[in-house]
Amino acid sequence: MGRLIRRVKATKVNITDDRRVVREEALAVEEPLEIRLGHESFSVTMRTPGDDFDLVAGFLLSEGIIFEPEQLISLRFCAGEDENGQQTFNVVEAQLRPDVAMPLQAAQRHVTTSSACGICGTASIDAVHKSSHFGVLAPVEEVILSASVLAGLPDTLREQQKLFEKTGGVHAAGLFAPDGELLSLREDVGRHNAVDKVLGAAFREKQLPLSNTILQVSGRASFELVQKAAMAGVPILSAVSAPSSLAVELAHSAGITLVGFSRGNSLNVYTHPGRIG
Amino acid sequence: MGRLIRRVKATKVNITDDRRVVREEALAVEEPLEIRLGHESFSVTMRTPGDDFDLVAGFLLSEGIIFEPEQLISLRFCAGEDENGQQTFNVVEAQLRPDVAMPLQAAQRHVTTSSACGICGTASIDAVHKSSHFGVLAPVEEVILSASVLAGLPDTLREQQKLFEKTGGVHAAGLFAPDGELLSLREDVGRHNAVDKVLGAAFREKQLPLSNTILQVSGRASFELVQKAAMAGVPILSAVSAPSSLAVELAHSAGITLVGFSRGNSLNVYTHPGRIG
Repeated sequence: MGRLIRRVKATKVNITDDRRVVREEALAVEEPLEIRLGHESFSVTMRTPGDDFDLVAGFLLSEGIIFEPEQLISLRFCAGEDENGQQTFNVVEAQLRPDVAMPLQAAQRHVTTSSACGICGTASIDAVHKSSHFGVLAPVEEVILSASVLAGLPDTLREQQKLFEKTGGVHAAGLFAPDGELLSLREDVGRHNAVDKVLGAAFREKQLPLSNTILQVSGRASFELVQKAAMAGVPILSAVSAPSSLAVELAHSAGITLVGFSRGNSLNVYTHPGRIG
Repeated sequence: MGRLIRRVKATKVNITDDRRVVREEALAVEEPLEIRLGHESFSVTMRTPGDDFDLVAGFLLSEGIIFEPEQLISLRFCAGEDENGQQTFNVVEAQLRPDVAMPLQAAQRHVTTSSACGICGTASIDAVHKSSHFGVLAPVEEVILSASVLAGLPDTLREQQKLFEKTGGVHAAGLFAPDGELLSLREDVGRHNAVDKVLGAAFREKQLPLSNTILQVSGRASFELVQKAAMAGVPILSAVSAPSSLAVELAHSAGITLVGFSRGNSLNVYTHPGRIG
């Protein structure tokens, strides 16, 4: 875990007796990752190193730039060294098939902007629908998994979180089968990155659309997390904490079952409850 | 709270007895905010509506684009309406003084990229130092506040969080005086936004540098949150949860006291403990 954990000295203050102890603490590593399309810089994200090719693939998928593995010709770390002769492994170059439409620059992310004054949640949702290759999921009433299995997923996720156990400082995303089996798990200081990594890995393994899976996340459910689920064709997104208003709106219109406050004894189903038996 | 909370129907499933109740749940509102510099689109952020001018000012400050209120000539909501005749109040236009250097586009955010292969945490930290107007804070050994007052700030923050109480789904940032008095508080679905709002408000009121204040946040401490504190001249950043490795590195080199795991009975001081008595 050399690139995942860094140990530093910290002063632990006990308030009750004002005792102070200097001791070693383990921190989750955060480093910038620059994503290049060809040789052009496209985005920089702060992430925990590891599974970087998955992260880049998942990010390009989430952003609606690619939707099938064949569009992604290659991923590689930037060849060469910096001024100090170091290869940092913090720059990934993605080579896309020439027919892939290049994205507008980053202000255009998530929403289609225009000279008009009307950006709103609805426009954001429309933008997802336009760029999601798998379209709106059929609002099936077919049960995919039981509520009790679903309610157990956060515990399984937490038990498997190696990095969280050591640092207390990372988010996790897990892809699960309907019987509760953990298919893959990724951790990252950024909750979006954890989801991009887990979806990007499945994308690279040609498993999309992820029609028969459940995506469990450790934190809240924002618009962007539902967007990522929609882009990968995931029918159920479950979060330990609260969803936002726009997350619920997008899940509703994209045909995704959105679960929040999944706390072991109870959970809330905000949209399309028919999949939960 | 019309634009802050939305009520939706959700199915609450009790796992123990498989009882299902459809009831109304309150969600924190999430909507896109487009930030324009003049008439050019610069960035889109997903945020909870409210205090949008503070958010924009804080964002431009954090990004190193402006550092004094005089550089920000005006802030206004986009004049006009969308195709449906609606003013969404989701587009803010900032007019900057003509001598303000226009930022590079968004891939250049947070780090200086180059054709070389060497992006790394150190480069990110250097970029903050270059763009921070207040420079590295003197690593004073002067006590600013007691550990017991500091340990009480998360409770004060939580007690004052109106939106969290109703939705369970928002982050908070609070600016405190050394005696523990809450100076200002902002809530948002995005933790970066909450910090931008609270710092942007102080910026607009010409209170920078915030030399004698403590910034308390509800979540973890990432690189970007320390960056924002540095840009506003805040000497102490305290988080309820874990810091990342790069957050600690930047706090160390910027002269900021970084506190994590502030849990009432204890807290960890990662850098510059001399300010905590």
